[in-house]
Amino acid sequence: MDPESFRRFGHRVIDWVADYLRDPETWRVLPDLNPGEFRRAVPERAPETGEPFERILDDFERLVPPATTHWNHPGFLAYFATSASGPAILAELLTAALNAQAMLWRTGPAATELEQSMMSWILDFLGLPASWDGTINDTASTSTFYALAAAREFASDLNIRELGMSGRSDLAQLRVYASAEAHSSVDKAVLALGLGRRGLRKIMPDAEMRLDATDLARAVAEDRAAGVRPIAVVATVGTTSTTAIDPVPAIAELCASEGLWLHVDAAYGGPAGALPELHWILDGCDRADSLVLNPHKWMFVPMDCSVLFTRRPDVLRRAFSLVPEYLTTTDGDVKNLMDYGVALGRRFRALKLWFVLRYFGTAGMRERLRAHIRLAAEFGEWVAREPSWERLMRSHFSVVVFRHHPPGVADEAALERANARILERVNASGEVFLSHTKVQGRYAIRLAVGNLRTEERHLRRAWELLRQAAHDVRS
Amino acid sequence: MDPESFRRFGHRVIDWVADYLRDPETWRVLPDLNPGEFRRAVPERAPETGEPFERILDDFERLVPPATTHWNHPGFLAYFATSASGPAILAELLTAALNAQAMLWRTGPAATELEQSMMSWILDFLGLPASWDGTINDTASTSTFYALAAAREFASDLNIRELGMSGRSDLAQLRVYASAEAHSSVDKAVLALGLGRRGLRKIMPDAEMRLDATDLARAVAEDRAAGVRPIAVVATVGTTSTTAIDPVPAIAELCASEGLWLHVDAAYGGPAGALPELHWILDGCDRADSLVLNPHKWMFVPMDCSVLFTRRPDVLRRAFSLVPEYLTTTDGDVKNLMDYGVALGRRFRALKLWFVLRYFGTAGMRERLRAHIRLAAEFGEWVAREPSWERLMRSHFSVVVFRHHPPGVADEAALERANARILERVNASGEVFLSHTKVQGRYAIRLAVGNLRTEERHLRRAWELLRQAAHDVRS
Repeated sequence: MDPESFRRFGHRVIDWVADYLRDPETWRVLPDLNPGEFRRAVPERAPETGEPFERILDDFERLVPPATTHWNHPGFLAYFATSASGPAILAELLTAALNAQAMLWRTGPAATELEQSMMSWILDFLGLPASWDGTINDTASTSTFYALAAAREFASDLNIRELGMSGRSDLAQLRVYASAEAHSSVDKAVLALGLGRRGLRKIMPDAEMRLDATDLARAVAEDRAAGVRPIAVVATVGTTSTTAIDPVPAIAELCASEGLWLHVDAAYGGPAGALPELHWILDGCDRADSLVLNPHKWMFVPMDCSVLFTRRPDVLRRAFSLVPEYLTTTDGDVKNLMDYGVALGRRFRALKLWFVLRYFGTAGMRERLRAHIRLAAEFGEWVAREPSWERLMRSHFSVVVFRHHPPGVADEAALERANARILERVNASGEVFLSHTKVQGRYAIRLAVGNLRTEERHLRRAWELLRQAAHDVRS
Repeated sequence: MDPESFRRFGHRVIDWVADYLRDPETWRVLPDLNPGEFRRAVPERAPETGEPFERILDDFERLVPPATTHWNHPGFLAYFATSASGPAILAELLTAALNAQAMLWRTGPAATELEQSMMSWILDFLGLPASWDGTINDTASTSTFYALAAAREFASDLNIRELGMSGRSDLAQLRVYASAEAHSSVDKAVLALGLGRRGLRKIMPDAEMRLDATDLARAVAEDRAAGVRPIAVVATVGTTSTTAIDPVPAIAELCASEGLWLHVDAAYGGPAGALPELHWILDGCDRADSLVLNPHKWMFVPMDCSVLFTRRPDVLRRAFSLVPEYLTTTDGDVKNLMDYGVALGRRFRALKLWFVLRYFGTAGMRERLRAHIRLAAEFGEWVAREPSWERLMRSHFSVVVFRHHPPGVADEAALERANARILERVNASGEVFLSHTKVQGRYAIRLAVGNLRTEERHLRRAWELLRQAAHDVRS
């Protein structure tokens, strides 16, 4: 594509995006289509001869938006709602255009060093130790996996880097600990590391869905007595299901005395620690060995951008670093991003952080986080005030977990059926999209605010739709 | 950023990119800066108050390009040269704007299904089995890691998913096999999986740097006799160092009879299999259990886009799938991308493949691959004809491995020093960027063609610079 055609088509695409962002509500948030429907609209094989780019863009505009779940839609209130802000979208355009593969410092000096700068900016924003090191990965699942690989390496007497874990009669069973409410990425990381499902011991949460540090200590002691070797604990600041906050100070104390790696999953909740009134959520995190935080969740950058901080970069590097001849350089003592994980090539992901943090400023970031928390609190109040509805958990963040619960109904199975039907009806409207979870076995609807475009009117509409659906389901 | 500001800034960014792509040669391919220099130009903390976007773009334009290694520069001839083509850059802009997180079918129906369509298009393009399944990952290192996790799960009698590998006296030492020329990502995957460095046995390559299938069979038999449990073999079609092609048919035969998982690393070389005259490079690959191929290497899409194909998607899914309550859906029998690896969230990466394959067409893709191979062959001829230079390996692809070797010089250490100095001088020119490797202990310079903008004149200039540097170094 010659530069002048690129310019012409580029302007057309920018105009399309500007129009799209002006009013994502033109689209249903959750599209109305059946599995396989989109695929049937795409030919079975690539064309032999190249096609005019106009036609490709026409097809994009015609086929893709109606088959897309619109994460930009202000009625997107499911999972953790996110935002692709304007400055970050333009940063991604520049990232794609430069196409720097920052595996080595020399293959992307600006990409490598801006990543280091942005890590410092975020540590400063959150009041975490300036001495920590950080790298950007694609997702929190990958970050947690890398963190637990470092934890395994941290148990250096086991010499797993050289000997591995199989065929060793000298090696005890290794185990990781987390709340039963921890994210499934912890289970997945433990599987990938070859520790097996029994390699993760889940601690039942307390009434507020937090890990109980006393139970944790008991589990660790019990396992040690049984010959199991504990290696790491994962604590969560803002669980996925209910945004519960594990007691990190007590857990950190235990990890320090037991010699365990402490990984904190603050993927969603972390940014709220930048608010003075919520800084306490990060209490004890300065004693963590690693901490993950996802700017693509609640810091207004598009997928993908997950930050893994560690105070032991040497251990993380030891878990992964291997430098073949063709990647040796004479650049001296530089940070090469390829040494901090499985992925070799690295996108210039720091650019979008730079753009967003400068465009909003830390005050602007704080203001938007506060606005989301306020909106969710308001919605929570509406639910709590309504006799036939029940707020199941209080959140310090921007998530509300609740259900329809008419007075006197005690049949949990019936409540689950009714709430699942309510959710299905509400989502079928195409106006809002909420998701669900279970809280101590009770089916719950989950509303998450995280989109920059979400206003009170969207929550009012969601609340109307919910009450209408409850009325319809009951009659 | 309101939509009209986005539009205005978007047009400015598009114009910048169009100008940049018109002439990447304005910039040095390898920037002239010292480690830490870029970082010192960035403030130590984020601004409190938001900044005007004009100022942010001004800083980008002023600071980033001079500190960037320009992968778009036609003189980029290092590692594997790549191209961010215009249609793919615009696709990335749309991907960032839509910000679909395709972890579940329902969170990104078009993203999920277009990924399946593009997998079919690529299989068809390469003449690989249409029945295979594929998913897009960030890098080949991740794809290979996922493939070997599947291999470990494939040895299902070991029940590693439940029991893990530690603390098991019943579990033999597990081992993976690859040529000593295989990419370091194989080593890294084996480490991450917890098999340890001894979990990978490297087979010394033959004179053409190919894995020797007889030696492989001998190693497997020897290990079995010693109580080791072989689980997988990695074969490479186009090694990183010299683009050697392992004898996949013989390796596949051995894997079938030994019950081993065969993973083929065709990350760079794979696309050349679409050329009728080179289709033979994929011989035997239809019997592989998994195969990785990187469109971001030689199919003209920006980082990141690595495709992992497998004929055993059920095994891959078993290695990773874990569905917590909050991610269950009622969508029925759909493919959920989160089930095929560690990463949960997935970018809409298929969009850039759709744009590129349609824009170039399969004929256009083939033509460009052929042009790169032809250019490299020409450069190889120049080297071979020059008495004081030596081509160390012939390549079927677009890479030339060579060195300065004046007649009569037999001192390998002196040759290494001289060639390293030649390379350093050439790269210091800022006009071209080449990398190095070692071939059977001999230091070699490596020239890779893969950029859409590279023309014969760039190779002529590289050749001039090399000969000039050799002259300077000798005198």
